[in-house]
Order: sequence, then structure tokens, then C-alpha cells
Amino acid sequence: MRKDNFMAAKIRVTVWNEFRHEKKNAKVIAHYPNGMHAVIAAHLNQQEGIVAKTATLDEPEHGLTDEVLAATDVLTWWGHLAHHEVSDKTVDKVQARVLEGMGLIVLHSGHHSKIFRRMMGTSCNLRWREADERELIWFVNPGHPILQGVQSPIILPKTEMYGEMFDIPQPNELLTISTYPGGEVFRSGCSFTRGAGKIFYFSPGHETYPIYHDPNIQRIIANAVRWAMPTGSMKLECPMSPTGWFEKK
Amino acid sequence: MRKDNFMAAKIRVTVWNEFRHEKKNAKVIAHYPNGMHAVIAAHLNQQEGIVAKTATLDEPEHGLTDEVLAATDVLTWWGHLAHHEVSDKTVDKVQARVLEGMGLIVLHSGHHSKIFRRMMGTSCNLRWREADERELIWFVNPGHPILQGVQSPIILPKTEMYGEMFDIPQPNELLTISTYPGGEVFRSGCSFTRGAGKIFYFSPGHETYPIYHDPNIQRIIANAVRWAMPTGSMKLECPMSPTGWFEKK
Amino acid sequence: MRKDNFMAAKIRVTVWNEFRHEKKNAKVIAHYPNGMHAVIAAHLNQQEGIVAKTATLDEPEHGLTDEVLAATDVLTWWGHLAHHEVSDKTVDKVQARVLEGMGLIVLHSGHHSKIFRRMMGTSCNLRWREADERELIWFVNPGHPILQGVQSPIILPKTEMYGEMFDIPQPNELLTISTYPGGEVFRSGCSFTRGAGKIFYFSPGHETYPIYHDPNIQRIIANAVRWAMPTGSMKLECPMSPTGWFEKK
Amino acid sequence: MRKDNFMAAKIRVTVWNEFRHEKKNAKVIAHYPNGMHAVIAAHLNQQEGIVAKTATLDEPEHGLTDEVLAATDVLTWWGHLAHHEVSDKTVDKVQARVLEGMGLIVLHSGHHSKIFRRMMGTSCNLRWREADERELIWFVNPGHPILQGVQSPIILPKTEMYGEMFDIPQPNELLTISTYPGGEVFRSGCSFTRGAGKIFYFSPGHETYPIYHDPNIQRIIANAVRWAMPTGSMKLECPMSPTGWFEKK
Repeated sequence: MRKDNFMAAKIRVTVWNEFRHEKKNAKVIAHYPNGMHAVIAAHLNQQEGIVAKTATLDEPEHGLTDEVLAATDVLTWWGHLAHHEVSDKTVDKVQARVLEGMGLIVLHSGHHSKIFRRMMGTSCNLRWREADERELIWFVNPGHPILQGVQSPIILPKTEMYGEMFDIPQPNELLTISTYPGGEVFRSGCSFTRGAGKIFYFSPGHETYPIYHDPNIQRIIANAVRWAMPTGSMKLECPMSPTGWFEKK
Repeated sequence: MRKDNFMAAKIRVTVWNEFRHEKKNAKVIAHYPNGMHAVIAAHLNQQEGIVAKTATLDEPEHGLTDEVLAATDVLTWWGHLAHHEVSDKTVDKVQARVLEGMGLIVLHSGHHSKIFRRMMGTSCNLRWREADERELIWFVNPGHPILQGVQSPIILPKTEMYGEMFDIPQPNELLTISTYPGGEVFRSGCSFTRGAGKIFYFSPGHETYPIYHDPNIQRIIANAVRWAMPTGSMKLECPMSPTGWFEKK
Repeated sequence: MRKDNFMAAKIRVTVWNEFRHEKKNAKVIAHYPNGMHAVIAAHLNQQEGIVAKTATLDEPEHGLTDEVLAATDVLTWWGHLAHHEVSDKTVDKVQARVLEGMGLIVLHSGHHSKIFRRMMGTSCNLRWREADERELIWFVNPGHPILQGVQSPIILPKTEMYGEMFDIPQPNELLTISTYPGGEVFRSGCSFTRGAGKIFYFSPGHETYPIYHDPNIQRIIANAVRWAMPTGSMKLECPMSPTGWFEKK
Repeated sequence: MRKDNFMAAKIRVTVWNEFRHEKKNAKVIAHYPNGMHAVIAAHLNQQEGIVAKTATLDEPEHGLTDEVLAATDVLTWWGHLAHHEVSDKTVDKVQARVLEGMGLIVLHSGHHSKIFRRMMGTSCNLRWREADERELIWFVNPGHPILQGVQSPIILPKTEMYGEMFDIPQPNELLTISTYPGGEVFRSGCSFTRGAGKIFYFSPGHETYPIYHDPNIQRIIANAVRWAMPTGSMKLECPMSPTGWFEKK
């Protein structure tokens, strides 16, 4: 739990990236020479009240040591090729931190990451097609703070298609629905709570396009960080209560 | 819509009160000599980033002129004896402002107000009993920002009982459940969205007890004001679209 | 409340129609010489366990007398040109019956009917365009009984476009999302509960196309009737409880 | 997916039980000499349209072979002492079947079973106390088919206390809230969907009390079986779509 006056302290973000595509695919390197995490973190560090660091798969413990996780208010997650290389021990720790209240923002192909599937309980499968197609991202929750300052629909000129049926539990809130020239639709922005933690899934972000340079996408990720920061008031406990609760006080 | 940098401007609250009990019932006057609205507004005005004014039933237009409503980010509502005296024209205007994005916090017996029933579409009936009983308010959404800084359960030593079946639509989020010595339960903290507006119903606040002097209740109302302030990005429109949307750009 | 053994009795449906387009527009008459209600009711009457009657705007009391409503388990509603001609008294009665448990299925332009807006508390506005376009109806809730026996996506070769932002409360369940060649999306199948009643909104059904002759659309309406029939166990009451509930037993 | 006419075939239930308490605890044996599963299955087999078999932990593959799971429409689950003895391979298979559409009804201490925690993604922790206390089960979703034919509140004269905070995702539907003399509350009846499968958690059922002999509890379990049976229409797929969807038709 962060301290009571939520204005006083900066939100501490860890931007996690698999960081493999950016080492071998020229199209990806052209957009993200230092990795997608570098671009995402740089934008977040320009925001008032946010401080972002990065962590990647090939660092020791994937860059997510106990110390890093304990000092993370919101974790963003991008992975694709190497979901299976993330250790189960790390997934256990991240899950525990989310239940304690750490925010989790899952991006694009992170839908198939171990941590997202763990938190959802479903396959998180979807339809997909790589064909340089336009995506329109329509808003269906017009007052949601994650959408603040952005107009509907967002237009991404070229993207990968993600389509329904997206096998996730019913989101707490559906924020955006995307559509593509092939006629498919996709619930592209979805919020969930698990324990004391808030989770936001946001599908834009295919690695061969400069999507994380798009100001609308950047704004939504920054808004999501603010929305997902730990708030609330309870520790989750499983105590035995030998007598009636109120008599103990 | 408030301007983009949500840190910069203060949240403008109008605390609305029927203000009748406080003019004729000695028990109520003892706790609220200037009305419940005065106590609620005074506490809100001590909060960083919030400025609160008041409005009451017997003022012209119930104190809710077009100017007042246009300058209100969040409206709180307490009524009981005189729901029927609130003009339908005012209810129409408040509904329109909520759909545009104004937050609405409905307190205690406001469950039967015209505006709450209008926004819900149901009877908003419930069970009740006045018997000086203890209420325990348990949290079931531990990460919710409205509960920040308060421990579960809140104990109110003496209150009026409100019990299920509470005839409301399924809330977007259920935050708290209350229980009473009679064995009843009540969904005492519920959030909804309608249009671009956020609505929070919170049941504590019977007029014959000093509940709005309770620091936990005050904190939750202030948290709810911050949660309910207008955010998001869309104007709600109903345009005819003569050609495909994206072709117009 | 229907009697306990829900298999034993037939579900009694009243198919309500404004029945104005079918009297003056040759394109509509070509598809529905006796009115859309006649086609919908005829299909329902072919289903095991369902018996359907019809009612229309220009009948006395719009065909919805107290006797008719009391004998209706599920009401379907199609209106467009003459929403304002439906009497408020009838809307009051229909709302009361829904809260008691009567199912309500709102079709197409019924989104702007008095009864739907009353139950929702919002404007129920949406975008629209008449341009003979194809609609794809994708399923996002694959286990829902309303979708049983139909494959996703349903293709309607020519239809009217309905697009977001659709100003409704967050549905209890989102079943289908539609898309159109213009790139728009629409939450075309949404379920709600209000009181003891179940409500299903389903957007297909523009009067100038033979959509209610489509076997997939017919199947979904019949499934929705089965889903919306009164079940459950409570009368909604607002009693005063002079002593603790359990002590009265 | 079950065949199209859902009236024609019987719902095939497998009642799973850990079946350990009933072999060593005299209090439990007094109520359930042949195991709780025997009582639950016997009641279900008296219902029209339902056929129930049983399976227990100590059978080969815990009684849940591929053949048994393939022939199960709805699985009920009671476990407590030996959650860790259920093989991960079986949990994998049950999860896959739920995502395909098999219903899952999790009873009482099954809240901590591997399969429930797997489907939820959370700890599923709760408060508890064994003190022979009365439970009142209040209904908050009066039209829900799972509550059909039962009056609110159900009274259980002696039970174990389960209390909030119950660490589950927000349920799709909250059906019942329980309260106890200690003043605690508990979301005792909750529905979820995962993939094409429906899940119902229902907390009553402590092994030292004759709760599964209670006609109200029996009725709710039978209603839940009918609600949870496979319906809907989609296979969950993750295909690559080389061209636009509609162009393939």
C-alpha cells in the first residue's frame, strides 16, 4: 500500500519487455533501436508524478528481483516469442504483488504471457492476421479516466489484426472496441481487478509498427498507470476469527 | 469536460441537502445546527484540490440553477421527506449533466430521490428499521480508491438499519456490504456509470446520528468526490453518418 | 412469478409493434405485409413451450391492458416513428411489470423507446447511417444460452448501421459486437437485469430489410424469450422491520 | 457442446468429493455415512432431466478420466483437507473442459481447491470460524434462475462462518450475501463465466452439519446444475486469418 496522500509520492513504474525482436528484426530495430521498453519508459518519465525504470527477460531474474517488485507500483508487460522462458517463480511473485495491490498493464501479445493467463484463468486465445491493416479504436466508456484527453476513434494506419473470440473473463469495464478492414472486432481495452490490484489489457503495440510513438497510445498508457496505481485500504488476510469480529474490538 | 491536466484545477463540488429535518427536529439540530450540508461541505473544503459550495431545496430552483450546475464537477445529494417537492425540470437538468460527465454521490435516504430513481430505472426500495443499532461496513473491493485510507470494517455505533432486497441495477462495482444486529445485510457502497458520469451510492447518514462527523465517513465521501470527478474524453453524440466514418477523415 | 415447475407451463409472449411503417412504406410492406410483429410471433409460435400473441400502438391502450400485461411472461418491443405516442401510463405499467419479473426484449430502433430509456436511465443515443451495408455480428460470450445454436459471425447482407457511442449503462453481459464496412462497431446484443426482470437489447431489425425472416435472428429471439422468462424467488418489498429479522421467525 | 434441443437430453452431472472427512470423523459420518457426494447425487437423480454420477479423490485419476470428463455436462466439487493431492494433470483437464463449456459448481471449502484458484487467478482466501452459528442467506438478485423456488433469507441454524474479504475476482453476478451473529458478511453465491463455461460458487456445506439434506440448499444446487449446463454456440479457436474474415465466405 502506498502512503495515504497519493499526491505526494511519485508512481514507480517498471516497464518490462521481452526485448528479443528488437535485437534481430530490422523492421523492429528501425522503430525501437533501444527496445520498446525504452520508448515507453521515456514517455512515462516525461509525465508529472511518474518515474519509470525498465526490466527485460535476459537480465538476472528477468530484472524482477524481490527488491524491484517491492519498489514497483505499476508493472507494464510486453512479451511475445519467449513467454515460456519466463520462470514460474517470477510469475508467482508478480501474481502475489498484483494481489497485494501492484497495478499490471498488459500490452499487445502479452495476452499470451504466463502472468496474464495466470490472472485470467482462461486461454486468452484470439484470432490474428498480419496484413498492414488500419485499426479504428472506438471508445465505449466515455467517462473513464484511462481515456482522458484522447478522442474516439483512434486511428492506427497500419497494425496487426486481433479479433474475437478473445477468451478472457468478462472484464470489469470494457473501454474500447477495435475494428479492422477484414470486418473483425476486438475488445482492445479491458480492465480487471484481482485482489487489491488493478489490471488493464490494451492490445495496440505490434512490434513492426511505431505504435508506441503514437501520442494517443502514449497518453492512454500514462493514464492507465495513474488509474492502476495502488489505492484502497485493506490487507488481504485469511485469519481464523475465534469469536465474533466486533467483540474483539 | 474539465481541462486536460486534472491536477491543475480544483474539483468543484455542490453539496445538496433537503435541509428540512434540521429545522424542526431537536435531535437532528443537535448534530447539525447549520444542516448536514454545512458539515459535509466544511470537511470537503479542508481537502487539497476540492472546493465545495452548498445548495438546498428551498432556495430558488432548489439552488441548482443552470449556472450552478454548469460550474459543478460533482454533486452530492441528501433528501428524505420531500423528494416529491424537487421539480421534474431540475431532475431533467441534473440527469443531463450526469450524462455529460458530472459526478453524482447519493447519500442515505437519497436512494428514493427522483434523480437516483431516474438514473437507475428501478424502484430503489429497501428494508429499513430505526432502532439505534450498530452497523458494520465491510469492504469487498480492497483496492478501490474510494476506500483508500480507511480500515474495514467501519463501525457505526448507532444507525438506522437498511436491508436487502435493495432494488437497484447490478452496480458496476460493489465496494461495501453492511450488516446489523438484526441479521440483515445491505450493499451500502455501490458505483455506477451513466453516460460519461460516475455515480456512487453510500448508505450511511441517518439524520439523527452524527455520522457525517465520523472521520471514516468523511474520508470516503472525499475519496468518492475525487473518483467521481469528470474524466474521459468523449462528447456523447447521436450523429447521422452519411458515409463510412473513416472516409471522412 | 410463474409457477415453480418451469417446464410445465408455456412461456406467454406479447410481441409489441408500432405497426406504422408497414402501413405506408412499400419496401416495408413487401417484407412484412401483416407487420413485423406477425412474422416474429409466427416464428415464436412454432417453438416448443412458447405461445405468442401480438399488440400494437393503435389498439386501445396500445394493446397492453392490465389483463394483457398480467398474462405476459415476456414482452418484445419494436418502435421507431411514434415513441412519443406511447402513453406514460402504459410505460409506468410496463416498468412495474418488468420489476416484478416480466422479461423485456427491445429490438432495433426500440433503443429510443420510452420504456427502454426509462429502464436504462440514459439517453440511449447512438450513431446511425442508412446505406444498405453488410453487418457482421460477432459473439463475445460463447457459452450464453441466447446464442445457442447459432454460429459467429452472423452475416446480414444489407442493414442499417448502428454505431458507438451507444449511451447505455454497462450491460450485465455483452453478448455480441457488430461491425460495418464504414469501420464502425456496435454493442448489438446486451443483457441487463432490473428488479426481478431480465432485459435483452438486440439491434438487428431495420424495417426495410427482411431481417426478421433470417433464421439466425429468429433463433436468437426465441432463445432470448427462454432466457428472459420470469424465474427467481422474491417479491420486491419495502417493509419496515420493527425488530430484527430473524427474531420474527 | 450439447445437441441443439436442450430439452431432449438429460444433463449429465458428476458429483466430485474428496471423501476423507466421511471416513474418519464420527460427526460427519452421522450425517453422511456414504459421503456428501452420495446425498447430493441422490437428490439430483430425483430431478427431471438430470442424471448424476459420483467421483472421489482416491479413485484412479480421482475418478475423472478423459471418458468421464467428456461425458460430464456439469461438475460439482467439494474438497477441503487434500486439495494438494489433486494432480495438476487433472486440474489441467478440468480447466480445459470448463473453457469448452462444462459447468462447474464449487461448494464450500472448495474455494481453496486447485481448480477454483486456477479459474479465478486469485488466492480465494477468506475469514472463517467454527462456532455452531446461525447463517442467514439473503438474496440480492431476485430474478436469477438459480434462486427459483426458494425464499430469502434461507436460515441455516448451525454452520461454519465464512467472512469477507473473500479474495475472488468481481463475480459476473452476485446472487446471495450471508451474515452471521459475529457480524461478518460473505458473498455466498457468486456466478462467473470462463471460456464457454459457467461457474457457480456456493458457500454452504460444512461437513459437520446436515446442510446437504436441507431442501433449500438442494434446490439451489439443482437449479445451478440447470443454469450451468453447456449452452451457446462457439468453439473457442485461435486461428490465423490470412485474409479478411468475410472475404473467405
